[in-house]
Amino acid sequence: MTLQLNVGGQNSKPIYKQIVQYFEEMILNGDLDAGAPLPTERDLAVQLGVNRSTITTAYAELRASGLVYSKQGSGTRVSHNAWDLLPQRFVNWSNVRNVSFAPMLPIAKRILEVTSNQDVINLATGRLSNDLYPQDSYKLLMQQILKNTDLTRVDEQELKKALASHFFADQDIVAEPYELLTTSGIQQAILLLIHCLLSPGDSVAIECPSYTYTNKLFTSAGVKMVRLPIDKQGIKPEEIYELYNRHRIKMVITNPTYQNPTGTTLTIERRKKLLEICSDLHVPIIEIDCFSTLSYNGDQPPSLYSLNKTKGLVIQIGNITEALGPELDIGWLLASKNLIERFEDAKYQMGLGASSFTEKIASELLLSGYWRDNRTDLQENLTRRKDITLSALKQYAGNSLTFIEPEGGFYLWCKLNGMTREKDLLETLIQHGVVAVPGGIYGVDKGFIRLSFAHCEEERINEGVKRLCNAIGETKHKLYSDSID
Amino acid sequence: MTLQLNVGGQNSKPIYKQIVQYFEEMILNGDLDAGAPLPTERDLAVQLGVNRSTITTAYAELRASGLVYSKQGSGTRVSHNAWDLLPQRFVNWSNVRNVSFAPMLPIAKRILEVTSNQDVINLATGRLSNDLYPQDSYKLLMQQILKNTDLTRVDEQELKKALASHFFADQDIVAEPYELLTTSGIQQAILLLIHCLLSPGDSVAIECPSYTYTNKLFTSAGVKMVRLPIDKQGIKPEEIYELYNRHRIKMVITNPTYQNPTGTTLTIERRKKLLEICSDLHVPIIEIDCFSTLSYNGDQPPSLYSLNKTKGLVIQIGNITEALGPELDIGWLLASKNLIERFEDAKYQMGLGASSFTEKIASELLLSGYWRDNRTDLQENLTRRKDITLSALKQYAGNSLTFIEPEGGFYLWCKLNGMTREKDLLETLIQHGVVAVPGGIYGVDKGFIRLSFAHCEEERINEGVKRLCNAIGETKHKLYSDSID
Repeated sequence: MTLQLNVGGQNSKPIYKQIVQYFEEMILNGDLDAGAPLPTERDLAVQLGVNRSTITTAYAELRASGLVYSKQGSGTRVSHNAWDLLPQRFVNWSNVRNVSFAPMLPIAKRILEVTSNQDVINLATGRLSNDLYPQDSYKLLMQQILKNTDLTRVDEQELKKALASHFFADQDIVAEPYELLTTSGIQQAILLLIHCLLSPGDSVAIECPSYTYTNKLFTSAGVKMVRLPIDKQGIKPEEIYELYNRHRIKMVITNPTYQNPTGTTLTIERRKKLLEICSDLHVPIIEIDCFSTLSYNGDQPPSLYSLNKTKGLVIQIGNITEALGPELDIGWLLASKNLIERFEDAKYQMGLGASSFTEKIASELLLSGYWRDNRTDLQENLTRRKDITLSALKQYAGNSLTFIEPEGGFYLWCKLNGMTREKDLLETLIQHGVVAVPGGIYGVDKGFIRLSFAHCEEERINEGVKRLCNAIGETKHKLYSDSID
Repeated sequence: MTLQLNVGGQNSKPIYKQIVQYFEEMILNGDLDAGAPLPTERDLAVQLGVNRSTITTAYAELRASGLVYSKQGSGTRVSHNAWDLLPQRFVNWSNVRNVSFAPMLPIAKRILEVTSNQDVINLATGRLSNDLYPQDSYKLLMQQILKNTDLTRVDEQELKKALASHFFADQDIVAEPYELLTTSGIQQAILLLIHCLLSPGDSVAIECPSYTYTNKLFTSAGVKMVRLPIDKQGIKPEEIYELYNRHRIKMVITNPTYQNPTGTTLTIERRKKLLEICSDLHVPIIEIDCFSTLSYNGDQPPSLYSLNKTKGLVIQIGNITEALGPELDIGWLLASKNLIERFEDAKYQMGLGASSFTEKIASELLLSGYWRDNRTDLQENLTRRKDITLSALKQYAGNSLTFIEPEGGFYLWCKLNGMTREKDLLETLIQHGVVAVPGGIYGVDKGFIRLSFAHCEEERINEGVKRLCNAIGETKHKLYSDSID
């Protein structure tokens, strides 16, 4: 625990009083819940640079007031009746913290923390690195836009038209502006989907593994996620019948092309079968598409949305972030007119949506052709990075893991032979100066890890994989030692 | 109903077949629900520019297939078993439309439609007009930012620091960056608040009238809104006791300064009483603040957040949109550290937040001092607009309405003497070329109207008020005539 406490200075109160007051306020504000530990006397003395006896006096006063208690072996902790004892009666915010929106998974949180603060080789983050975009051209374009455009006049149709004619057209998708809603990314689109189409208690089939298990949007809304397993060719559509009969699933959610986290691609035969089965059951399909433009051989498979000629069965959720660059987190929902109206209403009421300037830049980039030029470069870069990752794994991994070779996108899904404790594995990775994502958070049983070769600098990938393999070797060794202790 | 149907052209099918197919698809896609009316034969013939007999043939075929039925007096409608009759079985999306996120109120929707499409005098929109901001200076600043900044490196703390030292400081609010979360506006902040602190079935006290009744965030989340009435001095804090005893309210939500929609300001005495009562009941206060910088005499009242010295009782939700301009929809949540962490987690998982470029511009504007210069102009402009509105009302309203004179912000709340049917009133206003917001959607009993003098061009305000008064006079006359028919 890092304390925002500086003693002494301008403050004329005795130091021990300042410490007492500080902890009183921490408890009052709910920053310290009932049962929460205070720092040890020794640690706090060092941290504040004061004599240990000062801390002893302060803690004694806090104990005397009943706010904290000390117990052999568990140190000093906040009392369970601290709230009643405080001179002012305040809101106990800690009461509300467990009733509502489910917090992020601890492993996801730890990864976020490590990747944003430390200099580790990052094989975890699922975003392309900045050097994969022509920053300078983008900035020039932005400046032109600022010079020539009245930013106060926003044409909401502009981006929709640009997407329809320059982005979807490449995917054989014919979309009218009224069949399209823009959002500021995939998560917002999923949020709208949940709010507009699902109710608490509903079940949805989600492929497993899937990145949707890592966020808490579905569970927080009371929606049950039913697993639809993936093999090397994606989900097996026939399994939907059983899920439907057992769970009355309301929709099937899939990311069929260069899937996150497995990198797999649903075959054409299975795509057609999936449409057929869902049509038969009246169960809509939510197709998530972020990576389809990032094929290694330039040959992207047809989307479910485009294969479903009469519309109405498939909603596509996508983003152009991976095609246009990380600053432009523009997403969309493609669906029939009446659904789009519904989503639009909810989007407006929830105050969602991207900034108009961001939308302006995105549509100019689509119109200008920049993104098409850049896509070819991106595909080449990703192919090279994928090859580096694969050859490094061949060199360092031995038989400790096996993996599926992807055809596009930027993930590699590895099965670890004999791994169980994911938290230990993650900490060992971090100690070795590398981070990747243990597979458990994607809904699978333990024993997998996802590598992303998109975010790390190209020249560090080899070293990253080497460290990763070393860490895995060490964890296995440690597990082995533990078991013979 | 406007149809996206063009017959003839390249299509070699007979025209009546094209019409049949079009309606089949409309029904298939759920764009036409069971019971929905088709256009009359006459109207459709005119719209498509074809012979009426062609439409008769098409409708006869649709009737023959059972998809539609005709009934004397109610025209041709979609059958209730249309879905079973269609050759392909598809998802009936219309099933899901009523179970989830509550749609916008029809009156709100109608106003949105009119103000975005038609050239009426707009006394409805609660946003400042663009000419109230120094657009050219802003654009210059944006260009400088683009030239000198690496947009790919975003410092999340920057905007927080700028807000804390240049915006909150003026309001006597001392906020550390960890007590602050930025959002892309008020609605997002409310969304986070609901998701993190409330559960379905909870009750919250919301002042009445309040703009929160117009959006469906609370009701869609299953939260019950209990009314806390407002008089000329704002809410009456003593009434909270009764609401607490009867409804076990979980929080009190208030917009104490230049309130939307009434323009009233909670007095200092009542502010203190409110804090005392809520502290006594352990009920937190959500303070919504958007307008406090927009005082007519430059003298803004202290916020509840700043009056609550020990923190922990008040969460402030605010935005700088009204201070910095309509393109910069930046909002915030001010709360204690542990709550902010919770909100931040949910914000991340929901994919919310403003674009980093927007945040950059906002922090530069705060640092540069532009916003302070502009605030003085804004205050003068608003005072003048308010005076024009008041004097126009005195000239044209007669005794048909009474109003509360505001001390800041941009709303005027008028009581209509003897008005009931709000939908009629709104349509009459529109016919007269003016639009304002009937009060019912803010949770009050009917007979009020909100005027905004912020969005309309200054030189049109007088004409707008004149038209408004004429429309009100006419509606009353009409009501009178109706009653003697």
